[in-house]
Amino acid sequence: MTSKPQKESPIAKYKLIEKYSQFVDSIVKICSDASLLKIKNENVIFASTLFTEHIDFDLSYFPLKHLGYKIIVATMMDIFAMNGTPKQVRMNMALSNRFSEEAIDELMSGIIICCSKFNIHLAGLDFKPSATGLIIAASMTGEVEPDIIVYKNGAKENELICVTGDLGSAYSGLILLEREKKVFEADPTQQPNFIGVDYLLERYLKPEPPVEIREVLFQNHILPTSMVNVNNGLATGLIHLCDTAKLGCTIFEEKLPVELLTFEKLKELGIVATTVALNGGEDYELLFTIKQDDYEKIKNIKEISVIGYMTSESSGRNIITNDNKQFELKGQGF
Amino acid sequence: MTSKPQKESPIAKYKLIEKYSQFVDSIVKICSDASLLKIKNENVIFASTLFTEHIDFDLSYFPLKHLGYKIIVATMMDIFAMNGTPKQVRMNMALSNRFSEEAIDELMSGIIICCSKFNIHLAGLDFKPSATGLIIAASMTGEVEPDIIVYKNGAKENELICVTGDLGSAYSGLILLEREKKVFEADPTQQPNFIGVDYLLERYLKPEPPVEIREVLFQNHILPTSMVNVNNGLATGLIHLCDTAKLGCTIFEEKLPVELLTFEKLKELGIVATTVALNGGEDYELLFTIKQDDYEKIKNIKEISVIGYMTSESSGRNIITNDNKQFELKGQGF
Repeated sequence: MTSKPQKESPIAKYKLIEKYSQFVDSIVKICSDASLLKIKNENVIFASTLFTEHIDFDLSYFPLKHLGYKIIVATMMDIFAMNGTPKQVRMNMALSNRFSEEAIDELMSGIIICCSKFNIHLAGLDFKPSATGLIIAASMTGEVEPDIIVYKNGAKENELICVTGDLGSAYSGLILLEREKKVFEADPTQQPNFIGVDYLLERYLKPEPPVEIREVLFQNHILPTSMVNVNNGLATGLIHLCDTAKLGCTIFEEKLPVELLTFEKLKELGIVATTVALNGGEDYELLFTIKQDDYEKIKNIKEISVIGYMTSESSGRNIITNDNKQFELKGQGF
Repeated sequence: MTSKPQKESPIAKYKLIEKYSQFVDSIVKICSDASLLKIKNENVIFASTLFTEHIDFDLSYFPLKHLGYKIIVATMMDIFAMNGTPKQVRMNMALSNRFSEEAIDELMSGIIICCSKFNIHLAGLDFKPSATGLIIAASMTGEVEPDIIVYKNGAKENELICVTGDLGSAYSGLILLEREKKVFEADPTQQPNFIGVDYLLERYLKPEPPVEIREVLFQNHILPTSMVNVNNGLATGLIHLCDTAKLGCTIFEEKLPVELLTFEKLKELGIVATTVALNGGEDYELLFTIKQDDYEKIKNIKEISVIGYMTSESSGRNIITNDNKQFELKGQGF
């Protein structure tokens, strides 16, 4: 159970955030990916995402239109993690002079399509030059009724751990794209071989947020007790839920929702699917806890997997493998 | 009257913003640097700023603490331009691995000091790796009472054009810093010569927002009819006020508030002070229009200069020089 290799920076993100948390003055402090603001009498969720070239995307295979779409989805996930509804977004973009107006049109079209699809108002945008590559920042507001706000720290012992959708496909898509890029660089006459892996590529390049599942939860009167997105990997998200609630957890390898295609493709590449499911990241899914009593309501919902339960802090954060061995979960630094 | 040289990108920022404005769905559309949102029954001003290394700052002479301070001030200016009060800010930073924890502490201390000084809540922060240098994004909310919101497009013909503080000092500071950097690069034994120019350096490296002046306006019952910040230069800001109000303007070179020190230093460098005052940018001041009737109230306020008046659109956007010649104002692309 190793982490995905660090891309940069020797300093752990969450350590840094924790260090400065004494200065953070949101109602929820660091207990969420987004901030909860009280603006006069209204609750406003406030989230922001920064995408930078070479870290979050590689333009040699990432279509600009999809990139525009993806940053909106990424920012929505932070609003969803507090059970809010995304409302408005502002975009700030820094572009180097290699970008043509057509390229900017592509990027903007992805942003506009995504905003329109999910009823988000594009409330403002700004462009500036960049000396180093494409940088995109999105800031989003969302609304939430006070009685359904979900925080990161709300889990209790014995509650069930659930995750939406499937895990590892997006990162598998990224591995394939990187592999084909290397093949192409070595021999530019080689065409990429992406037969039969459309789903994996799409999960990475054009993720869809789990909006229907949120509807299903709502209709079944299930209110998560804590929630987080797994953009940075399931293990990282889960450790976060545990840290903020001062609890431990046990999850089961056999319960991790990995698609057969993902499993087989990773096997072919000699990669253990569980590692990717735990630490690959890039899955735009929600990880949440529910009361045990809600199990009956949730067990037949296809798009939700119950993968384990919360334990006492002293029990640690563990995964039980298919051959019944126990390992400690490790998250990513960033 | 030439512009400051373009740093990058062949595409004019405002042309781009205008192009996509049909998709922008803020209440004020592109008529302001910030967005005005209606969140349930409350007006919320929503602003965001992106600073990128090599474009907005050069770390070889820009102290990180000042940089943290400056991005907060820059974002506040967008809230001020709508006559709002800054309330909360979220920070997203991308750092390359050359940043030590001490360096991050410096950056954060500037952010925290500025937030604390101006009563802004640091509502959230996030860090991520960067492959290309330091990137800082700030998103800020602000509050404003409906009856005092000021838009960019509210000016009327014959109204007076006012600007706070002085112009050109910040850009002069930047010129000096760049000059000394070149001297140092050529001969690292040379120490920088900054005797007597503290004010210029401070205007660039640690700008202060015109908060007292806003108070003075308020106490004198002066409500600007339109307002914009001049972060991108006086000429650019003024052309914007004219464009959105479909008006022209006439300003007077002799009325431009240029400090004697700035004037003399620029003369020494062989640079025309008026050019820098018009197009240097980096001045964290407010440009606004007032009704003619308010002239009596404003004329004795030291920190505000009346520099001209709005005209019909067909009259164009002009500056009358000290030797009574007329030139068309030119803004910056970005």
